[in-house]
Amino acid sequence: MTAAGSPRMATEECRRLMEGERVARMATCAASGPHLVPIVFAIDGDRIVSAVDHKPKRTTRLKRISNILANPAVSLLADHYSEEWDRLWWVRADGIATISEAGASYHRALDALADRYQQYRHHRPEGPVIEVAVERWTGWRFSPE
Amino acid sequence: MTAAGSPRMATEECRRLMEGERVARMATCAASGPHLVPIVFAIDGDRIVSAVDHKPKRTTRLKRISNILANPAVSLLADHYSEEWDRLWWVRADGIATISEAGASYHRALDALADRYQQYRHHRPEGPVIEVAVERWTGWRFSPE
Repeated sequence: MTAAGSPRMATEECRRLMEGERVARMATCAASGPHLVPIVFAIDGDRIVSAVDHKPKRTTRLKRISNILANPAVSLLADHYSEEWDRLWWVRADGIATISEAGASYHRALDALADRYQQYRHHRPEGPVIEVAVERWTGWRFSPE
Repeated sequence: MTAAGSPRMATEECRRLMEGERVARMATCAASGPHLVPIVFAIDGDRIVSAVDHKPKRTTRLKRISNILANPAVSLLADHYSEEWDRLWWVRADGIATISEAGASYHRALDALADRYQQYRHHRPEGPVIEVAVERWTGWRFSPE
């Protein structure tokens, strides 16, 4: 990590790198601590959407939803690992999540997800959509000391 | 997701899958919301260790540390993505973190990290060690509905 010459990325590069990834991770907070799940997602400007694939059947599928309803602050991360550490990078989007189960923004989110993932074209998600309004993009890439 | 025949994994499989990954993500909680970073790590039974590479220079490098000091509950995630969604899996370890900067467990953690990552053999981490005592392993793999 260089002290001078920060390796921090501009917002546009953060967005571009995250958009190039197929999976991200979403962290939410409960009173008891953090909850963390991988997600597939679509980006539309400063809005990142994901969906619960099917009508929830298990308590754990709903943990992210109940956390967001109690505390809508979420953090999303995409990262690139390589055994050559000079190729490492990560991108994080911190923002505020809302849940929808119907309406125009719900269907727009599902359309964006179906555009990106063929599985969603064959089997459209039936569960709630989580829409994150990104308030801060942060990106880092390795830079020699 | 099958209703009958849960695809949840046994603890031993969770541990084995996470151990096979080279990168995981660590979520911590601040009062303002979650914080999320990728980590390299080593596993010793129900103990997962990571380190801050160098003496911290930037505020953001310390966010995970200040969060843990205020709320030691952390969540660690390793996941596998494939365009063939029947190959998806993820493994999560939820636990309680402690920070160390010296002493036997500090050096034992750095040894374990150096065993796994050649970069750490060449340049031993100089920052704090985060040691997570795992309280719950959770794993999921795709299972057709």
